[in-house]
Amino acid sequence: MPAFSRLAALFLLASSPSTNAFAPSSLPHATKIAAPSTSALEMGPPKADVALAETYGEGSRKYRRTVYTHNEWVKHRSSDRFFGNLSTMVNSGVYKSLAKEVLATTAVATFVVLYNAVAGGYTDLEGAQHAAILSALPSLVLPLTPFTLLSPSLGLLLVFRTNSSYGRWDEARKFWGLNINHTRDLNRMATAWYGHDGQYVDPEKRAKDLQAVSLCTWAFVRSMKRHLSPPAEDEDAYQEEIRARLPPAQAEALSNAAHRPNRALYDLSVAIDKLPMHFMRKNEINKNLSIFEDTLGGCERLLSSPVPLFYTRHTARFLSTWLLLLPFALYEPFKGSWNHVAMIPATALTSVFLFGIDELSTQLEEPFTILPMQGFCDKIGMWCDEIVSWRGQGLDKEQQQYY
Amino acid sequence: MPAFSRLAALFLLASSPSTNAFAPSSLPHATKIAAPSTSALEMGPPKADVALAETYGEGSRKYRRTVYTHNEWVKHRSSDRFFGNLSTMVNSGVYKSLAKEVLATTAVATFVVLYNAVAGGYTDLEGAQHAAILSALPSLVLPLTPFTLLSPSLGLLLVFRTNSSYGRWDEARKFWGLNINHTRDLNRMATAWYGHDGQYVDPEKRAKDLQAVSLCTWAFVRSMKRHLSPPAEDEDAYQEEIRARLPPAQAEALSNAAHRPNRALYDLSVAIDKLPMHFMRKNEINKNLSIFEDTLGGCERLLSSPVPLFYTRHTARFLSTWLLLLPFALYEPFKGSWNHVAMIPATALTSVFLFGIDELSTQLEEPFTILPMQGFCDKIGMWCDEIVSWRGQGLDKEQQQYY
Amino acid sequence: MPAFSRLAALFLLASSPSTNAFAPSSLPHATKIAAPSTSALEMGPPKADVALAETYGEGSRKYRRTVYTHNEWVKHRSSDRFFGNLSTMVNSGVYKSLAKEVLATTAVATFVVLYNAVAGGYTDLEGAQHAAILSALPSLVLPLTPFTLLSPSLGLLLVFRTNSSYGRWDEARKFWGLNINHTRDLNRMATAWYGHDGQYVDPEKRAKDLQAVSLCTWAFVRSMKRHLSPPAEDEDAYQEEIRARLPPAQAEALSNAAHRPNRALYDLSVAIDKLPMHFMRKNEINKNLSIFEDTLGGCERLLSSPVPLFYTRHTARFLSTWLLLLPFALYEPFKGSWNHVAMIPATALTSVFLFGIDELSTQLEEPFTILPMQGFCDKIGMWCDEIVSWRGQGLDKEQQQYY
Amino acid sequence: MPAFSRLAALFLLASSPSTNAFAPSSLPHATKIAAPSTSALEMGPPKADVALAETYGEGSRKYRRTVYTHNEWVKHRSSDRFFGNLSTMVNSGVYKSLAKEVLATTAVATFVVLYNAVAGGYTDLEGAQHAAILSALPSLVLPLTPFTLLSPSLGLLLVFRTNSSYGRWDEARKFWGLNINHTRDLNRMATAWYGHDGQYVDPEKRAKDLQAVSLCTWAFVRSMKRHLSPPAEDEDAYQEEIRARLPPAQAEALSNAAHRPNRALYDLSVAIDKLPMHFMRKNEINKNLSIFEDTLGGCERLLSSPVPLFYTRHTARFLSTWLLLLPFALYEPFKGSWNHVAMIPATALTSVFLFGIDELSTQLEEPFTILPMQGFCDKIGMWCDEIVSWRGQGLDKEQQQYY
Amino acid sequence: MPAFSRLAALFLLASSPSTNAFAPSSLPHATKIAAPSTSALEMGPPKADVALAETYGEGSRKYRRTVYTHNEWVKHRSSDRFFGNLSTMVNSGVYKSLAKEVLATTAVATFVVLYNAVAGGYTDLEGAQHAAILSALPSLVLPLTPFTLLSPSLGLLLVFRTNSSYGRWDEARKFWGLNINHTRDLNRMATAWYGHDGQYVDPEKRAKDLQAVSLCTWAFVRSMKRHLSPPAEDEDAYQEEIRARLPPAQAEALSNAAHRPNRALYDLSVAIDKLPMHFMRKNEINKNLSIFEDTLGGCERLLSSPVPLFYTRHTARFLSTWLLLLPFALYEPFKGSWNHVAMIPATALTSVFLFGIDELSTQLEEPFTILPMQGFCDKIGMWCDEIVSWRGQGLDKEQQQYY
Repeated sequence: MPAFSRLAALFLLASSPSTNAFAPSSLPHATKIAAPSTSALEMGPPKADVALAETYGEGSRKYRRTVYTHNEWVKHRSSDRFFGNLSTMVNSGVYKSLAKEVLATTAVATFVVLYNAVAGGYTDLEGAQHAAILSALPSLVLPLTPFTLLSPSLGLLLVFRTNSSYGRWDEARKFWGLNINHTRDLNRMATAWYGHDGQYVDPEKRAKDLQAVSLCTWAFVRSMKRHLSPPAEDEDAYQEEIRARLPPAQAEALSNAAHRPNRALYDLSVAIDKLPMHFMRKNEINKNLSIFEDTLGGCERLLSSPVPLFYTRHTARFLSTWLLLLPFALYEPFKGSWNHVAMIPATALTSVFLFGIDELSTQLEEPFTILPMQGFCDKIGMWCDEIVSWRGQGLDKEQQQYY
Repeated sequence: MPAFSRLAALFLLASSPSTNAFAPSSLPHATKIAAPSTSALEMGPPKADVALAETYGEGSRKYRRTVYTHNEWVKHRSSDRFFGNLSTMVNSGVYKSLAKEVLATTAVATFVVLYNAVAGGYTDLEGAQHAAILSALPSLVLPLTPFTLLSPSLGLLLVFRTNSSYGRWDEARKFWGLNINHTRDLNRMATAWYGHDGQYVDPEKRAKDLQAVSLCTWAFVRSMKRHLSPPAEDEDAYQEEIRARLPPAQAEALSNAAHRPNRALYDLSVAIDKLPMHFMRKNEINKNLSIFEDTLGGCERLLSSPVPLFYTRHTARFLSTWLLLLPFALYEPFKGSWNHVAMIPATALTSVFLFGIDELSTQLEEPFTILPMQGFCDKIGMWCDEIVSWRGQGLDKEQQQYY
Repeated sequence: MPAFSRLAALFLLASSPSTNAFAPSSLPHATKIAAPSTSALEMGPPKADVALAETYGEGSRKYRRTVYTHNEWVKHRSSDRFFGNLSTMVNSGVYKSLAKEVLATTAVATFVVLYNAVAGGYTDLEGAQHAAILSALPSLVLPLTPFTLLSPSLGLLLVFRTNSSYGRWDEARKFWGLNINHTRDLNRMATAWYGHDGQYVDPEKRAKDLQAVSLCTWAFVRSMKRHLSPPAEDEDAYQEEIRARLPPAQAEALSNAAHRPNRALYDLSVAIDKLPMHFMRKNEINKNLSIFEDTLGGCERLLSSPVPLFYTRHTARFLSTWLLLLPFALYEPFKGSWNHVAMIPATALTSVFLFGIDELSTQLEEPFTILPMQGFCDKIGMWCDEIVSWRGQGLDKEQQQYY
Repeated sequence: MPAFSRLAALFLLASSPSTNAFAPSSLPHATKIAAPSTSALEMGPPKADVALAETYGEGSRKYRRTVYTHNEWVKHRSSDRFFGNLSTMVNSGVYKSLAKEVLATTAVATFVVLYNAVAGGYTDLEGAQHAAILSALPSLVLPLTPFTLLSPSLGLLLVFRTNSSYGRWDEARKFWGLNINHTRDLNRMATAWYGHDGQYVDPEKRAKDLQAVSLCTWAFVRSMKRHLSPPAEDEDAYQEEIRARLPPAQAEALSNAAHRPNRALYDLSVAIDKLPMHFMRKNEINKNLSIFEDTLGGCERLLSSPVPLFYTRHTARFLSTWLLLLPFALYEPFKGSWNHVAMIPATALTSVFLFGIDELSTQLEEPFTILPMQGFCDKIGMWCDEIVSWRGQGLDKEQQQYY
Repeated sequence: MPAFSRLAALFLLASSPSTNAFAPSSLPHATKIAAPSTSALEMGPPKADVALAETYGEGSRKYRRTVYTHNEWVKHRSSDRFFGNLSTMVNSGVYKSLAKEVLATTAVATFVVLYNAVAGGYTDLEGAQHAAILSALPSLVLPLTPFTLLSPSLGLLLVFRTNSSYGRWDEARKFWGLNINHTRDLNRMATAWYGHDGQYVDPEKRAKDLQAVSLCTWAFVRSMKRHLSPPAEDEDAYQEEIRARLPPAQAEALSNAAHRPNRALYDLSVAIDKLPMHFMRKNEINKNLSIFEDTLGGCERLLSSPVPLFYTRHTARFLSTWLLLLPFALYEPFKGSWNHVAMIPATALTSVFLFGIDELSTQLEEPFTILPMQGFCDKIGMWCDEIVSWRGQGLDKEQQQYY
């Protein structure tokens, strides 16, 4: 398992900068932070030695943290994709989550076929018609009408809910996107504006001050990631990482804070305020921190507030009832097949596709366990470290500012 | 009842910070504010000793103030949810609110079955056909055509209205989210920027000044919550809480103001302006107050302006008429069942699902009585108190700013 | 009529501040501005002595200016609402506007019934079949197919247009919401920041300066309301109100300006610039004025630019043609009723519901005559007056700012 | 033609400011700019002496530049609108653009009727049945099934595309709305803040400086309008207008610039920077120019980037194929009419309504030729001139600012 | 090939500025940058000498980089477009990508026709009925019911996914739009504000400083384009262009940076900070760089995060299964045609239109390879060069600023 994820991390790190600008060159501390990151950056389907339980349900969510580059897009658009999708359908973890529901509706369909054969007659394998075994029993069929009348409303409810859930996923992804953008903005400003009033700037102090800013930036996003992950999955890795990178006192204070991302933001504010620079420029830099407050709070909102439960439940109840009763209405239309038996797979497929839409909404509603947040944190750490390492085009020598 | 909510509050407070960063550690005043909060933070279904009247209708709204953590999400995504949803359907408060409407359409369906049996003949329990008792009466049936033609428009109207109402709920939740984000932003800035010009800062004055800012912040969100809650539900608790925490003169002035949240914002402005800091930094801090004006006014807008009434009413009239007349059109298609009797439960279920969509919209249209606003206020109070308690990494000692 | 609206105004003003924070206490000038406001704050259905012409069409729009509090919401969510809606359907002004169209389609339906009876035979009241009177005439029937094929597109067009119109209403409501939020923001800043540089502040000058700011704020929103209202409805009341409250020269200049809200904003800019305060703080206050430019211009945009006319017209033509031809297609399906006569009310109801969706869009497309703008202006006036009346927690005494 | 548009301009200018605040009083230069504006402000249907070619297609777009006031809204909402819409349907330019497509589908329908009469028998005018003339030919009919199965997807594609196009129109209208709002904001700030440091301000220099700002503002919006209009329509009028109003050197530089709106914005920046005012206030004013960069760039984006062509084309191909094949499926359902002949007008109407939705999208996709941009420019010019003409309430005399 | 693109570039450059403001006049370096741009600005269908493989699939994406002017719009709206679209349908690259899927469904349809002819009888070419050849085989038919019930949900899923993909394309286009707007904003500010404190400004230093800003601006957008393009397509052209235009050291540093756009933004920050201007004005200019951080990060987000894969795959599987099984349900309805043979083309067309919607979504999901990014970069370079070349209206001579 570690082998696999290390491979993935290496792949990310190894591609030459001259051909793929997304891949950062291996910076000094890259290996240091690559180690703790192994716990959560796994992508793609799980390997063979993982228990089957991981291929669907909660355990499978960490394999859905997709990261695409141009190569994946070419494959994604390939005209072979339809057949690929169909052939992997049986193994898809999402469909395995639906097994119980689909079994239930298929069981109803099977019951309808058997009962109506007993109550209304059947055809044997040679094709001979037989009378009902228990002719006193009424046959169990329903007209299609109510199903047809309700199907537009049901489809709309399902798809609008999918849209709301997709909107939540998209919002979460955008919040992390803002984290990425504005950590870079913050470090770029701090680096480009370092120094003031034509005073001599000590290169070593500059490096140390800016490295502190970069480190505090990373500490914030890492604490935010921890805040949004299930404790069992991330607490140990978090402790290990912050203690490996931060000064002990700062790591301790962070670990003990009731609200750790708040504390990390405070530490970052202090680090910025220590830079030798006019305070109005620090105010500008500080605007990025207000954005972080919004991304942090926005993610907390998505995590603590699901779509109102009666919306979700009404949709689920509407769908389940509609599908559980549907076999009674399908009996008649399937009279063309032997003993109506084709309605059993038809019910199964209908259930897979409609329950699948609901499952999809549910999978997207809480987006954090399927976002590659560890990958984002590692990238932010590396990029900020690169930015603060730049000296620019001889800026230090002719340090000059105009007031 | 208090026992239950105290339990809930304890649950929130007790989880160790090392495993769940959402749970704030018990800060000094936590117990002080926990007491008044008992009146409104109740979540989950009501307890057995609550009158039945609370399980649906207005009384039930306070149990819909959902707050999720990772554990709830795991359960929410569990593949058992469909059966759980179905089994709780009978007890669901939302459906109980629909009882009258569903009874009305079911009564129409029953009338259609009985009348047509009298006017057009019936089958007795042994299955023998009987002629009409009053054959002069015409049978009451309608063709399905108009119902089918109208069903896409009806479905679209219903689901778009649901979408608008969901949008209102989402907007309200986001306004409170902004309150959470920017109270933290404000207090973080005030704490990190306290002091100026290299002057000596008295630690005690610092603590007192910043505590005043944190308190005024809390007073604003608490006043806003009171402003948006039904007076009968929250006025007493509000008076008790502000008098317990604020200086008497401030509490009095707040309580007497015609528009209390305005007054609370004014007090907060004054508290910020008293901090020893360049006024341009105060201007930055003050930007959070402009955001509060927007969240406050936005919530007032949602409360005072429903979706235009003729929209809501046209949808409700369209739906009611369609469902009340539907049984006349279902009589014919249900000829397969004994005396068409299956159309009665079919009408009931159709009504439950379609009236349910309308009910859902109505429940979400005014979002404040289903948002856990008291929980938000308590959390804001605690987090701001934690933030202003930090001294940072020795900032006071080398207090140094560059102009 | 004045009696009714005065009652409504009193209701708004009288509720004790200790139980309803929305109701401002009666401030000094409240009675002064309450008088002119009677002309436009009427809400709820018109009284008995109003001519019938006011119950629908243009005259009825001023009764649609809904303002909700928690009490209205409880009623709005009550499970009796469906029956209430149905029983008021006959009196609803919106449906009365549809009378002509619905009559037209019903007339077509009646013609189809009569013509086909003549051309294709009929059943007399005893139920005996009669042959066609003029058997040479072909019967006029159409197949349902084209109506069914077009119904999804028609429904989508109608409901998307409703959505666009609702979006316009929502945008207008939000612009006025921003006016409310930022008039308060502006006055709060001016009040909290009044004074500078530790200079002695004369309390009387402070009161006068701030009162001027509050008055100019009100003059702006009142001029904006006038700008967006039909001249016949509001010009006299406007002249009366501004001359009662503003200094004569300012009122005159305002009244004579080609673009009055622009002039009012200019006066407000000048009033702010006269405050004793660092100009950078005035710049902050001034940001609210830029927001007002946007709300003003945004409302002008909604008023002067309808949804492109060929969109509206194509939808209306599609719908009218579809409904006018529908009776020919309904003749056959209604063969179950005596002489197909049930198709006449069916056509009427179908027309009411579909024309109703179009009517709804049209009613929402120009939102200003259904928004309670006079109520907004009065509230803004009162709240700003309250804000500038506060002295804060002893701020004047220790007036101290840090640069 | 000029007579008509001059009439329209006069109507806009003449209404007394005491009854319609939208109508600016005739300012000094109003007549000067009214002259060049005649070329593009034409609204309403073209006059009788305009060649027929102008009533539809490209030529008709300039008559779609709708501007509404309250009077138009009353008519727009009038309950006569349905009949009005129907009676003008034949003359509607939009439908004339569809003539070719509708003719094609109607021709197919006619062919289907004739061919099947020949191949499958027909009824003569006396109603006698005749056998097929060429009985060896198979009849050409298709089942309805595939048309029904595809109709929801087709309807959704059409209406979503309409929505996207409407979104583009709305965006363009909002960009021009922002131009209107922020030209006023800019000139208001410049006027209210003119002067500094208590220095004596020469009224003549003030008038000249501010007039230059107003003129540069107008030059920008006029250049932007030119930039977005077809050169053939607007280049001459543009040259005439800028040479009439701007100093010759500035007009020349503007006319020669590769990107004229960029040049106009630069001139405006320079005019602002010359105002006697603290540069931090100029920074505030300059924020409006950043908004202009966005409105300009946003409009360029809409003009240069259509909705991706394969989206538009796939929808058009889907629709055309569906409609061209539809007559084969309508033959059977129309068996009720003499020789199925009613399917010909039914095909025509179906084509009109569905092609009409596509036409509507196409008309809205490029919004600039249907927006009254010349009217916007003229109004902006007049309003800014009014704003910079105000001296305020004696501000110059007690010119006093506090730092 | 180069000939063609050079032609296109010439067309863009050659149109006289007096008739088309979009066409920049040929600036000094225009030819210099035109050379490298030939690799990626190709628009329109590929030329005859391009391998067929380029007409569809990945190779065809570079011909979809549409740029419209008024002439294209007139053609786009022309009433001939429907026939044009139909006639080009066979050659459309998008449909060629669908060949495999459509072949698969058509093969199933053919199999259904042949099998059922064998198992259930057929009609020979003379129209004589023949009994089944293998009458023991059951006929393979399915009822239409499940297809009809699922068709609204399927249509909604498909079209909502198209909407999400269109949203992604639109977002990417807007990010590049913001790049265009704010590169101009940045250079305009730098040019208009150059100089300070009334000091003498050396025209040559001014030109050199501003040219550096313009060059760094271009280097950023060019590096961003490279970052978002497939390396194989753009790396060589990128190296050539930056080495041709930038100073060698800067080009080298840029090329070696792990994250090149970050480096380019840093270089731009430094170039701005070297301008002789108050640092508060530089802060204003710097706001544009924060926007660039957002456009850069936003594009990276779109590139690295596709729509969640289980959404895309569920839709594709639903659609494929529905279409692969559909022929079994179409057999019965097509009994009207000889041996049901018309169901084969019907299946093919249905597949083309529905798979086409899915293909459309997939084509839009990754928008960068279909956006004319090279064109954007070239335009930005030219426009910024023009802006920094302006001296304004004699600003340098009376260089004067007021503090």
